[in-house]
Amino acid sequence: MLPDPILQEIQQELLNWHEQGMSILEIGARTSAYKQLMIQLEADVREVLTIPDDYAVLFLGGPARLQFAMIPENLLSQNDQKAGYLLSGIWSEMAFAEACKLNAQSAYCLAKSDTPNGYFATPTKADWQWQPNTAYVYYTPNETINGVRYHEVPQTGGIPLVADMTSCLFSEPINIQDYGVIFAGAQKNIAAAGLTLVIIRHDLLQQKPKHTIPTILDYRTHVEHKSLYATPPTFMCDLAAKMLRWIKAQGGVDALYQRNRAKAEKLYAYIDASSFYQCRVEKNARSLMNICFSLPSPELEEQFLQQAQAQHLLALRGHRLVGGIRASLYNAMPMAGVEALLAFMQQFVKELAE
Amino acid sequence: MLPDPILQEIQQELLNWHEQGMSILEIGARTSAYKQLMIQLEADVREVLTIPDDYAVLFLGGPARLQFAMIPENLLSQNDQKAGYLLSGIWSEMAFAEACKLNAQSAYCLAKSDTPNGYFATPTKADWQWQPNTAYVYYTPNETINGVRYHEVPQTGGIPLVADMTSCLFSEPINIQDYGVIFAGAQKNIAAAGLTLVIIRHDLLQQKPKHTIPTILDYRTHVEHKSLYATPPTFMCDLAAKMLRWIKAQGGVDALYQRNRAKAEKLYAYIDASSFYQCRVEKNARSLMNICFSLPSPELEEQFLQQAQAQHLLALRGHRLVGGIRASLYNAMPMAGVEALLAFMQQFVKELAE
Repeated sequence: MLPDPILQEIQQELLNWHEQGMSILEIGARTSAYKQLMIQLEADVREVLTIPDDYAVLFLGGPARLQFAMIPENLLSQNDQKAGYLLSGIWSEMAFAEACKLNAQSAYCLAKSDTPNGYFATPTKADWQWQPNTAYVYYTPNETINGVRYHEVPQTGGIPLVADMTSCLFSEPINIQDYGVIFAGAQKNIAAAGLTLVIIRHDLLQQKPKHTIPTILDYRTHVEHKSLYATPPTFMCDLAAKMLRWIKAQGGVDALYQRNRAKAEKLYAYIDASSFYQCRVEKNARSLMNICFSLPSPELEEQFLQQAQAQHLLALRGHRLVGGIRASLYNAMPMAGVEALLAFMQQFVKELAE
Repeated sequence: MLPDPILQEIQQELLNWHEQGMSILEIGARTSAYKQLMIQLEADVREVLTIPDDYAVLFLGGPARLQFAMIPENLLSQNDQKAGYLLSGIWSEMAFAEACKLNAQSAYCLAKSDTPNGYFATPTKADWQWQPNTAYVYYTPNETINGVRYHEVPQTGGIPLVADMTSCLFSEPINIQDYGVIFAGAQKNIAAAGLTLVIIRHDLLQQKPKHTIPTILDYRTHVEHKSLYATPPTFMCDLAAKMLRWIKAQGGVDALYQRNRAKAEKLYAYIDASSFYQCRVEKNARSLMNICFSLPSPELEEQFLQQAQAQHLLALRGHRLVGGIRASLYNAMPMAGVEALLAFMQQFVKELAE
């Protein structure tokens, strides 16, 4: 979901972008107008997230999932180095599987919070099983499929922390210095699919990677070329630039966080008070972005989804791997959207009872 | 450059795509409406290029340059296999450098057409230097930076031919069966930056790659998941679908080729007749898409570029590596655009003489 004023701005500019006499879809990535956009975009990302100078900010083409491979390929610089993965849902599991593919010794599970019925919590610190020579710890602060969120940043004792923030970057204040690498696909709170934002501490790029890796998978390539090594996804960078201005106009990530918390708390409060709807995620691990809940039966869930769609409440189907219902409350979702969903949920229960 | 009716269609649909009540920028890649788009897009690509069933058609996120690494990683399946590269300009040189990075034995130069002053021809068949166990031959049918084009498909005697068609796919008829792999970044004739089209013969994917490669770099992943392994660049796929409809409405690649040839021939004819402008590319190797020429001095070229811009003749600066002037005549450039450029070129010479 994107804010309507942003969509309208794109629409208005579509045939004549920034008075250039052509569309952003036609503008060359090597033109000075486009380079200016990239400079402003980086400056705004740095301002909104208070990113110190010892971090690089990269705008890369392609899906966030490419990072599942780039992270271990870049960060395991010595032969006996390993990566510890914290598993709290499907996305961290997939990132772990990819790191393991590099070689048999490259990654291990630092801790895992699954149950036979799925993930409903984050791993408990007491259960962490460290292995020697851990180069980095990887985690997924918000798991979209499971609706699981870390309410605190994992403490790694100085070992670089890598975070897949695809679904939560710009939704809450973070302290960049807690992280070695942050990456985020743009399709949640930044733009739409096709752009990945990477924030990386420069010192992590000083050691040559363990393996020869393709030039385009090497973060150092993109730092050196200021994200212009290959043609960047120009349209998505323009959309991201607009979203950054919107985020600033909303009062920044602090203000968005207050709103996001209010939206999620309202929905969780209703679900917890209800005997019909159920959220199985532990209270100290609940996502602010993806509220996952279930109804008493899959048949009722199907009925719920169909009636919701008829009332223009869209995209509520849970991920096929876990089923159920999922309400995604990204930055652009207003409180009115949550209220409309709540009204529908109440009405659905009431009509069933009649 | 994109056709105006396509830009207008995107503009019109921007807030409500295909009556879905949301923007294409918001639509989920897992929705049935989006999956339907992908099916139609593939069907249209297959129809326009007459692609046989034993080829897969993939729509991948990220820059075409990622293919420079994916090609050797995927196609060198045995330890003693090598790839032969035909070098006819900067892009084939860059692809070759990336293939060499895989390991010291992975790639060799099959032939090279450079001169001390640059590339102005394609390699002569008599100069090809084969090495044993060549898994594939790689070439760049159209070199955008040098304005060099192969007027005939290299004959490899049955060894799979890999072609980077970023700047020429859909600009002329091709016989798919001449190729093992075709790939093309979308920013020239298909959509805008952020999407790469790959056409690959299924039998090339039957052997396991030589190295363990990241899942997302393995073509088999994308064949298996029908280009939906990672979130695809949804907006660019929609734009590509619109462009395919436009290509069909124009009469397909045969009709576009006739037009492209007429546009290029008109410009080359004027340049060749002029004693002021000069095109150094050999006549049997001239690009239809990128007409590169020079003026008697860099100062005159700078003056030319500034006056051209003032007359809204844009993007004429040659690539920084070769300098000079470059007129790019992709599918969406009408003959009127060429005529406007010619009129300006004539006027520029005339005013200098006065």
